[in-house]
Amino acid sequence: MNIIPVEEKWLRLAEERQLRLTKPPRSLGRLEEIANRFAAIQQTETPAVRHPMIIVFAGDHGVCEEGVNPYPQVVTSQMVSNFLRGGAAINVLGHAAGAGLMIVDVGVAHDIPFTNGLIDRKIARGTQNFCRLPAMTSDQASSALSVGMEMVDRAVHEGSNLIGIGEMGIGNTTVASALTAALTGLPPVAVVGRGTGADDGCLERKIATVTKALALHKPSALGVMDLVRTIGGFEIAAMTGACLQAALHRCAVVVDGFIATVGAALAVRMEPAVQSYLFAAHRSTEVGHDPLLEIIQQKPILDLNMRLGEGTGAALAIPIIRAAAEALSCMATFDAAGVSDAEYGLK
Amino acid sequence: MNIIPVEEKWLRLAEERQLRLTKPPRSLGRLEEIANRFAAIQQTETPAVRHPMIIVFAGDHGVCEEGVNPYPQVVTSQMVSNFLRGGAAINVLGHAAGAGLMIVDVGVAHDIPFTNGLIDRKIARGTQNFCRLPAMTSDQASSALSVGMEMVDRAVHEGSNLIGIGEMGIGNTTVASALTAALTGLPPVAVVGRGTGADDGCLERKIATVTKALALHKPSALGVMDLVRTIGGFEIAAMTGACLQAALHRCAVVVDGFIATVGAALAVRMEPAVQSYLFAAHRSTEVGHDPLLEIIQQKPILDLNMRLGEGTGAALAIPIIRAAAEALSCMATFDAAGVSDAEYGLK
Repeated sequence: MNIIPVEEKWLRLAEERQLRLTKPPRSLGRLEEIANRFAAIQQTETPAVRHPMIIVFAGDHGVCEEGVNPYPQVVTSQMVSNFLRGGAAINVLGHAAGAGLMIVDVGVAHDIPFTNGLIDRKIARGTQNFCRLPAMTSDQASSALSVGMEMVDRAVHEGSNLIGIGEMGIGNTTVASALTAALTGLPPVAVVGRGTGADDGCLERKIATVTKALALHKPSALGVMDLVRTIGGFEIAAMTGACLQAALHRCAVVVDGFIATVGAALAVRMEPAVQSYLFAAHRSTEVGHDPLLEIIQQKPILDLNMRLGEGTGAALAIPIIRAAAEALSCMATFDAAGVSDAEYGLK
Repeated sequence: MNIIPVEEKWLRLAEERQLRLTKPPRSLGRLEEIANRFAAIQQTETPAVRHPMIIVFAGDHGVCEEGVNPYPQVVTSQMVSNFLRGGAAINVLGHAAGAGLMIVDVGVAHDIPFTNGLIDRKIARGTQNFCRLPAMTSDQASSALSVGMEMVDRAVHEGSNLIGIGEMGIGNTTVASALTAALTGLPPVAVVGRGTGADDGCLERKIATVTKALALHKPSALGVMDLVRTIGGFEIAAMTGACLQAALHRCAVVVDGFIATVGAALAVRMEPAVQSYLFAAHRSTEVGHDPLLEIIQQKPILDLNMRLGEGTGAALAIPIIRAAAEALSCMATFDAAGVSDAEYGLK
């Protein structure tokens, strides 16, 4: 792929513009950093968020048969219906952010009761249990990435220049933890958390399951696509494809929480230049999130103790990115406002 | 005043509703806490942000003659013009948040070049230098509080149920630091920061100035109104009045950064029940902010290294509060969505 990192030249031009705006230099803190990079991604000094789109990828996981989750797999399909009916957190928060929503079935195991508006790209009815088998075939892994790429193509074609990625998949914190252990070399105990509500017994089973998967597939010897194939998930691989394709289009991506950050980290390992197109929406309560944030070299915009997924953190971060861009693009300069820059600005 | 703290009953009803919504319990983290308290303030289970209004109070400070600020006082009047022309950060960020804006002159020292839309409640052309004299008279202190109350009355009358408070006043970090030392008993060195851009020499003068003011006025023996009178500022006192009046109207207040939090902390010291109507927008980079947040018992919603003032942090927090309220009010319940609550929700 021909992914070009964000250019220093545009970052510098944005920084210089910030210094001409009617505020003490750097007084908007991280808002300025966000705006400057968003400007550099768009190769302009006056960036704007246009038609933000949150893409929610849903998939199921064979590893659920190990008892790693307090909820049965059927909840994935029920929640996809809920997304399509408009009743879930991501519907409300996405609407509040002024973002569009695409709901994509990449591999839900059960029949989805309500399917109006669903984008059906089901690869299989869930992955295989990675404690016994590779989670998917090579073809399936490639297909999952392609689904993510296709959805980003569609969103960009419709005019979006900021894409949020989120997910739904019962059991996918276990999968994300296994991938995090593989990507970082950290022991399972350091990257396995309680997900959406694991009790102590469940947490122990998650750690044992990740340990078993790592012993079986020996990920330290594997390339990134083989990690996806052996211990990945369809929705996670789709998010990886989405990040790659967004960077190719010079489109910014706001990455939701723990699971989405695994998808992004896989993309960065494949193509390091992807990193400069990513914004980390929020710090998840999951213990494995911080080492992934190091891989994608992003500091989260928000820290609100959230652990829901679905893209809800991405939805909350979109207004912040929009506000950051508008401040850079729309504030008056010292000259225009008749405020003395020698006095207030350029100290 | 007859300020009634937010009632436990409404908090509990909101919490119970959260548990019926289609998400794992408490998975939206602090967003749920924000929504629940906002609901309790409005005495409803289905709260909504209506006509949010940011009120920016501007005033000048006699203490500027001690050389505590790198910018001349005239910048206050220039920036008020910039607010009225729409070119400042608060204009752009307020608009992005869908908030209205009221710009109030409570005591700007210089002529304001452009005054269209200004709410003129000028009490004096700046306060007195509190290193030599009380900053204001008792009448002036009362008037400043009354200005804040009047503005909140107006906003509430126009339908606002969420008020952001912000300020502009060259030199007001020094004033806020003196008030913080007085309110907390902390030594000046622990509460004086660099404001919008003090160098080392300037910082030392700020510390010396606060030390001198405390020695002159002996605030530990003073009541809250006498603190306002001796070492306060017009815009800070107006924010205190705004917090008191908002709580009286059962209207939520989103408090900007360091300076605004001093205003809020003074209100809480006068009427502790005010605390439950306040939301802290963001954590300022100023060192004195944390002890004030303890007084108002609030954890900031955002932490973006900002130090601009004007209400810019409040503007960024409004979409978060709105999203939190909408999630509580508009998400589907388990019953309505056909998602099994025994499975996904009420573990």
